[in-house]
Amino acid sequence: MLYFENDYCEGAHPAILQKLIDTNMEKVSGYGTDPYCASAQEKIRTACACPEADVRFISGGTQTNSIVIASMLNRWEGVLAAATGHVAGHEAGAIEYTGHKVIGLPCKEGKISADTVRDWCATFYADGNHDHMVFPGMVYISHPTEYGTLYTKAELEALSAVCHEYKMPLFVDGARLGYALVSEGTDVTLPDLARLADVFYIGGTKVGALCGEAVVFPHGAPAHFLTMVKQQGALLAKGRLLGIQFDVLFTDDLYTSISKNAIVTANILKRALADKGYRFFMDSPTNQIFVILSNQQLAELEGKAKFGFWEKYDDSHTVVRIATSWATQMEEIMQLIELL
Amino acid sequence: MLYFENDYCEGAHPAILQKLIDTNMEKVSGYGTDPYCASAQEKIRTACACPEADVRFISGGTQTNSIVIASMLNRWEGVLAAATGHVAGHEAGAIEYTGHKVIGLPCKEGKISADTVRDWCATFYADGNHDHMVFPGMVYISHPTEYGTLYTKAELEALSAVCHEYKMPLFVDGARLGYALVSEGTDVTLPDLARLADVFYIGGTKVGALCGEAVVFPHGAPAHFLTMVKQQGALLAKGRLLGIQFDVLFTDDLYTSISKNAIVTANILKRALADKGYRFFMDSPTNQIFVILSNQQLAELEGKAKFGFWEKYDDSHTVVRIATSWATQMEEIMQLIELL
Amino acid sequence: MLYFENDYCEGAHPAILQKLIDTNMEKVSGYGTDPYCASAQEKIRTACACPEADVRFISGGTQTNSIVIASMLNRWEGVLAAATGHVAGHEAGAIEYTGHKVIGLPCKEGKISADTVRDWCATFYADGNHDHMVFPGMVYISHPTEYGTLYTKAELEALSAVCHEYKMPLFVDGARLGYALVSEGTDVTLPDLARLADVFYIGGTKVGALCGEAVVFPHGAPAHFLTMVKQQGALLAKGRLLGIQFDVLFTDDLYTSISKNAIVTANILKRALADKGYRFFMDSPTNQIFVILSNQQLAELEGKAKFGFWEKYDDSHTVVRIATSWATQMEEIMQLIELL
Amino acid sequence: MLYFENDYCEGAHPAILQKLIDTNMEKVSGYGTDPYCASAQEKIRTACACPEADVRFISGGTQTNSIVIASMLNRWEGVLAAATGHVAGHEAGAIEYTGHKVIGLPCKEGKISADTVRDWCATFYADGNHDHMVFPGMVYISHPTEYGTLYTKAELEALSAVCHEYKMPLFVDGARLGYALVSEGTDVTLPDLARLADVFYIGGTKVGALCGEAVVFPHGAPAHFLTMVKQQGALLAKGRLLGIQFDVLFTDDLYTSISKNAIVTANILKRALADKGYRFFMDSPTNQIFVILSNQQLAELEGKAKFGFWEKYDDSHTVVRIATSWATQMEEIMQLIELL
Repeated sequence: MLYFENDYCEGAHPAILQKLIDTNMEKVSGYGTDPYCASAQEKIRTACACPEADVRFISGGTQTNSIVIASMLNRWEGVLAAATGHVAGHEAGAIEYTGHKVIGLPCKEGKISADTVRDWCATFYADGNHDHMVFPGMVYISHPTEYGTLYTKAELEALSAVCHEYKMPLFVDGARLGYALVSEGTDVTLPDLARLADVFYIGGTKVGALCGEAVVFPHGAPAHFLTMVKQQGALLAKGRLLGIQFDVLFTDDLYTSISKNAIVTANILKRALADKGYRFFMDSPTNQIFVILSNQQLAELEGKAKFGFWEKYDDSHTVVRIATSWATQMEEIMQLIELL
Repeated sequence: MLYFENDYCEGAHPAILQKLIDTNMEKVSGYGTDPYCASAQEKIRTACACPEADVRFISGGTQTNSIVIASMLNRWEGVLAAATGHVAGHEAGAIEYTGHKVIGLPCKEGKISADTVRDWCATFYADGNHDHMVFPGMVYISHPTEYGTLYTKAELEALSAVCHEYKMPLFVDGARLGYALVSEGTDVTLPDLARLADVFYIGGTKVGALCGEAVVFPHGAPAHFLTMVKQQGALLAKGRLLGIQFDVLFTDDLYTSISKNAIVTANILKRALADKGYRFFMDSPTNQIFVILSNQQLAELEGKAKFGFWEKYDDSHTVVRIATSWATQMEEIMQLIELL
Repeated sequence: MLYFENDYCEGAHPAILQKLIDTNMEKVSGYGTDPYCASAQEKIRTACACPEADVRFISGGTQTNSIVIASMLNRWEGVLAAATGHVAGHEAGAIEYTGHKVIGLPCKEGKISADTVRDWCATFYADGNHDHMVFPGMVYISHPTEYGTLYTKAELEALSAVCHEYKMPLFVDGARLGYALVSEGTDVTLPDLARLADVFYIGGTKVGALCGEAVVFPHGAPAHFLTMVKQQGALLAKGRLLGIQFDVLFTDDLYTSISKNAIVTANILKRALADKGYRFFMDSPTNQIFVILSNQQLAELEGKAKFGFWEKYDDSHTVVRIATSWATQMEEIMQLIELL
Repeated sequence: MLYFENDYCEGAHPAILQKLIDTNMEKVSGYGTDPYCASAQEKIRTACACPEADVRFISGGTQTNSIVIASMLNRWEGVLAAATGHVAGHEAGAIEYTGHKVIGLPCKEGKISADTVRDWCATFYADGNHDHMVFPGMVYISHPTEYGTLYTKAELEALSAVCHEYKMPLFVDGARLGYALVSEGTDVTLPDLARLADVFYIGGTKVGALCGEAVVFPHGAPAHFLTMVKQQGALLAKGRLLGIQFDVLFTDDLYTSISKNAIVTANILKRALADKGYRFFMDSPTNQIFVILSNQQLAELEGKAKFGFWEKYDDSHTVVRIATSWATQMEEIMQLIELL
């Protein structure tokens, strides 16, 4: 069975496991105050070229989205996001559970534009009744998006500008950020994100870690952030688990190098699929490939290869998602190409 | 430096790390649907002699308390707990953040009695205005308590009876449950807990795991529990991280055997302290020792041994907590005895 | 100045004020347990031909929406509503504040169809990941809608059927219900609502009362509803204030007769506007008229007549809302016609 | 039947009803922007000698407590209150429903002292783990308290000082404030409250109004307060209902003069009870009298006089609350004295 359903089906990069073993019996203080967290924070600040940044570690993506949004919004504010964004549809109402509305904006291939945000805000503030409505309090984007697409630096600059025009933070969900940073043709770097976003996170769970996301606040974290993390139940006693993983990922540029594997393997697969005449649902430059298969072919592949169901295309075709990752081996790609 | 400040200062039991390595590149499905979670669940059901139990894994203690309480209470209900209970004072308002009141009850050495619960409930329902008040919806106890003390089987039976009399679930926080189960003189077993509690958890973070608590619902989990876990941000994509750890802890009785180490070392230390004439603040039969030191002695120990500050005893004395754990080595105990 | 901005700019029907005076010094019990509440409840049950109904009084519309929705939804559920529905856009996030998502559905002239609801639910349950999403827990419609439009009996029957197919309650916001019930050509009656909805409310604030909405639960209120009303801060000590008002409104069919005034005056105005060649933005059969005015005319009318701004139509035209009510006098209508 | 169960069993002062009639058909704007609200706000500012104050109207006491507390606390903060305070025990968890903990402090006759608050805060901040706990964010007191007792000006000054020392607002629940201000021997005035409290409210529901509390923010309301009121469902469309009532209550000192009636009647009753040898549970200087009756006498009074049950005194005696109000007539007092 070839398994391409998602990018979190293996464990962790071996260097992480090795470091967990090497440091295992060291006695360190809890709740993220240990030297491994400190070291990882410093390395991430360096990678972001942002010495003032405050870096915090949280165990997963939904948790991070919920905590970041709920800790940065005022009570009367909601978060603007692509209608197809993760926080809008696939987090079981985690944002609303904290009392905040997710305001879905029109989007294209998972991306929202600065113009859309500006129009929405201008309309909102022009409405004489806006005190009876949810205020725009933050813009949330994902990079890569849920469709594997990427923002350009110019697009991020425009979003950052409109956010600051309306005094809203820009939040970038980077659950798969590694795959964005090494995508061919992207012009967005970690220092760009630190310059343009008010908060973003560097995904670990989907990029080589067992668990964990590194949240970067270029201008500092909200006051009492640790207490809010605890209040949402997410403060790990053994914070070292997250610190050690990110310390390894940001040593010798490991995060970059393992991310490249996902892109290299995805690109080979994409070219082979194109050569074989497959149609793509969307052109995605990162580790997720959205391809249209006939339902008959899908039935034949059952038991041989596993993909992610994306959506129905028409009565006889389905869009599937094929995900590569830091762990995908070229051999698997070759077997899949043969199979398709 | 001797480090006795808490029971979560090391990493994980080596067998856990070995299993993480052995299984690392296996591709498994996410969100707790993998075979390691299934295996761990089955082993825990067996250890609890409760084949019908539903077992779920959550990454930490505060998270577990918050999710269990918020998923089992109705909106008009609060949770009854010892005024000194963890959920009452040391979780940054995590329970209230979910909209529920923690109702603090009078307690003794961290324990509440069935009589206290019964009196409280009887007074509540006798009050003609109780529809204007928070209903009792659950009883929360910790075992061991925050003071390291233990309930007897008879006490748990009485609490279970009063809970069921008032149609409330009994929830046992077992963040340090291993140390309770192997304490000398305890008559409470895992099957007892499965028989008497409506939900309890088997702590991993403080008993050999990197992170993780195993929640046991002897009569089944609340409907849509997975969705509620996700809604609170706590559903790990790589659920295997928790499943593998508990699978190892419940193989060949590892959970029991490593717990014993904490008790053996604690008992040796307690006897030595008693012999040296130290006064104890409380008689605790588990892995936490509460001893009264003079402030002068504390000052002299600075840099040599680290304890947990518990509370001021009088103007010249302080109560400190000395915690042993699954990882404490006899050599450390001997050095500490020499030092004191 | 002619004032047609909304339908809540006067006080109350004089008969209500008279009854407040007549009963003023009677001593009655609090929190809705007084004889006036009981009398009003009985009269409403009779008007609804639903002797089993539970009727409760709440002071305003947003409060009612928030309480009804939050008391009937499970934690993992959201409410399906027209994207243009009041709860979706104009209640400052009151629903999300209680932790629930408002799921906006495509709509036409403020109305959603049974087919739209069925398609949404079918897609939701067909999605293998729906446990990671917000469950559909209730359908909310307003009747009349925010655009003054009405559902037909057949449409309500279809909505009721799909709701029960998916085991969701159907909730009808009747903030302006009086104006719906007496609209020319409607085939929907109070007994129809009691038969088809699982909960609906009879608006008082916009139909003759100083404040207050009567919530009707044909199959009984949720358990502990009073406690939840109190928990949301909405339990009035002097419940008589609401009981007396609805007792008057449902005596001698006052609610119907005063509602007719709004329709009669609106219809005369509509015909006159049509005769004068005005374009309507929408054909609304109740007390709200949506008419397109040139911005120049609007400027000229400033200081002479006040309308509700609805939305920009094009660069030189605006959609305004003209609202009549129980209190509108024919003389005002004539003056307005002359002015336009 | 003599009815002394509470102070909200009649309607409103006749002058209020008259004004509702006089202004009934005037067309005014909604949501508290009408001229009657403006007039009442100005009169209250004058009465408080606080021209900078922001005054807002909310329909009831629980609603007011919930909105004020939730709008002024940060997410990581709770409210300090007497363990016997209304928000701690008798509001169905309304505060916790907004996500905040009520921290119960030791109290005497319903009052907390500045020393208690200071000790609590000093202990909190001295605790090295306080980031894992709920921060003190506000002090809530009621004046009169739930026991009818009063703070002295010196006590309020001390509380105000400790609040500001710890940068917390002081909130005074004045549901029965009228009865405090005119109590014999009190040295606390409205201007004192405006000087010492950061927010307080002037109760209407229990002092002559049909409903409504006037919240006074001497230093201005929190930003976006109106939106938060709406978000909690409490923004009345016909804000005039509250504005008119307070406009009348603060015209010609009506609030003071009707409050005096409660005190005069209560004092006559207290003297008569003392003369007859009744024992008081507590010495309360306002409109609530707590007297100890034998259960036998209580049984004999059934059907003749109605009191509020307070608590069991001993096996054969009960503490009852007798409440007078703005509406109590001397004749009722005489009848009650005769009866007892």
